[in-house]
Amino acid sequence: MANNQSKPNIPQLHEYAVSFEIDTRWMDNDQYGHVNNVVYYSYFDSIVNRFLIEQKALDVKHSKQIGLMVASQCFYHSSVAFPDKLVGGLKVNKIGNSSVEYGVGIFKAGATHACAHGSMTHVFVDRLSQKPVRISGHLFDTLSSALICPS
Amino acid sequence: MANNQSKPNIPQLHEYAVSFEIDTRWMDNDQYGHVNNVVYYSYFDSIVNRFLIEQKALDVKHSKQIGLMVASQCFYHSSVAFPDKLVGGLKVNKIGNSSVEYGVGIFKAGATHACAHGSMTHVFVDRLSQKPVRISGHLFDTLSSALICPS
Amino acid sequence: MANNQSKPNIPQLHEYAVSFEIDTRWMDNDQYGHVNNVVYYSYFDSIVNRFLIEQKALDVKHSKQIGLMVASQCFYHSSVAFPDKLVGGLKVNKIGNSSVEYGVGIFKAGATHACAHGSMTHVFVDRLSQKPVRISGHLFDTLSSALICPS
Amino acid sequence: MANNQSKPNIPQLHEYAVSFEIDTRWMDNDQYGHVNNVVYYSYFDSIVNRFLIEQKALDVKHSKQIGLMVASQCFYHSSVAFPDKLVGGLKVNKIGNSSVEYGVGIFKAGATHACAHGSMTHVFVDRLSQKPVRISGHLFDTLSSALICPS
Repeated sequence: MANNQSKPNIPQLHEYAVSFEIDTRWMDNDQYGHVNNVVYYSYFDSIVNRFLIEQKALDVKHSKQIGLMVASQCFYHSSVAFPDKLVGGLKVNKIGNSSVEYGVGIFKAGATHACAHGSMTHVFVDRLSQKPVRISGHLFDTLSSALICPS
Repeated sequence: MANNQSKPNIPQLHEYAVSFEIDTRWMDNDQYGHVNNVVYYSYFDSIVNRFLIEQKALDVKHSKQIGLMVASQCFYHSSVAFPDKLVGGLKVNKIGNSSVEYGVGIFKAGATHACAHGSMTHVFVDRLSQKPVRISGHLFDTLSSALICPS
Repeated sequence: MANNQSKPNIPQLHEYAVSFEIDTRWMDNDQYGHVNNVVYYSYFDSIVNRFLIEQKALDVKHSKQIGLMVASQCFYHSSVAFPDKLVGGLKVNKIGNSSVEYGVGIFKAGATHACAHGSMTHVFVDRLSQKPVRISGHLFDTLSSALICPS
Repeated sequence: MANNQSKPNIPQLHEYAVSFEIDTRWMDNDQYGHVNNVVYYSYFDSIVNRFLIEQKALDVKHSKQIGLMVASQCFYHSSVAFPDKLVGGLKVNKIGNSSVEYGVGIFKAGATHACAHGSMTHVFVDRLSQKPVRISGHLFDTLSSALICPS
């Protein structure tokens, strides 16, 4: 798509709390030769879960509480394509009683502005009852450590 | 997740202009045993393109104009899982000069309320120059035929 | 690819014991405009599991025994593309003590010869110990019902 | 699955000509909590194409010749799961007139033996006519550079 690098509302990497390298795959490209719009959400999803797992705030097999996605959105600014190397930025926009909204941005390696950015909202629930639970303890501390309020 | 079937703001199938059957796949289920949040966008994406192609408003290989996704969002209400059969509803929320916003809903077959709903925004561009083009002619007529303004 | 319809070793639908309708998705198409080679395995995987689940030979959440894939292969004869409708054929090639080899074929709806065919081998293991278990009872009966020895 | 590390016929990383880092994604895990059998083929596919593209033996948009997959297979030895980091090994098993068979292996980072290995066969065809073409020139040299005959 057009060169949107100067648009002020496209996030930059320094606006995120943590970042992760992301590999593209051949099948990420769709028939138009660019990473398909759906695939960005698999990057988002992986960044969020990698952060929680690496910080020991989520044990996918054993945690009593798990995060269920209740909302997500993405804005696409410019295209990338396999075999590009990407970087994903993650921050926490806000923490509620049982929910958290993450801000996520995808960058072509070396680029200053995101090729896509969006948000995802987790509600933490009890694994068995699926009832919302209060975010507290190490999970709260971990999420707080990445809290950067949207400007 | 909890039974949200009575919530007034969860769309019902009759609110959509057209509908399509959707198959689930084994790998759609994630580690929690439900269709992963990312996969809903592949349903959305397929419904939109199937509609355009079947109505001959898009020829993926030859159309001079193609639709690029610039925004998408999804709200998740209740879970589904392979091997569930699904139905996807599609409508057009608004048509701009070069862009169109689709409304999409995913239903477990036989359910009255959506398990997830959202929107996607296409900008139509010239395939070669990637510059936005005005929506007109048969494409405009096709999109108009599915236009149902959000209530 | 070239018209291989007359090749004698491309399976026909009547050679399979059961069949299932399969939907293609927009993102199944890769950059060359055809269903990507990887995606056929998601069709295979879904056919096998759908058969086992529908026949009540597998309860993904509760069965004491689950099937783990130990080998798979595919031969690609001709291309298909979204939004094609497909049909998947399934048979059982052989049943061992704890393993079963399935034969699978993918057909464009209405076509007599497969666009791709292959096989997958499940080893049934105890869900907790992951040790192989003997195929018996209803699982054995279900698999036997689809047994068609390769000619 | 069981510890198969001592089995002699599970490939080791030094048996491959080149290697690439591979990221796992949250949605790679299936309902059993491990990378789904299908996903390994997306790793295979990406390794092969990354090699060809990086060596300038394939320009996906402009090459007159492209590689179409005609066969693939995989043997699964032990499981991996998101967020594991992986390494993919690639070699060329044999080069025919218009076809090439690649050997591929997937390793958990740091492991000596593959968690899965397999092969893929490309036939190079003229992009427009889809007729097989002779492998020659820089493509032949590139493939030859990774040629390691199966022992």
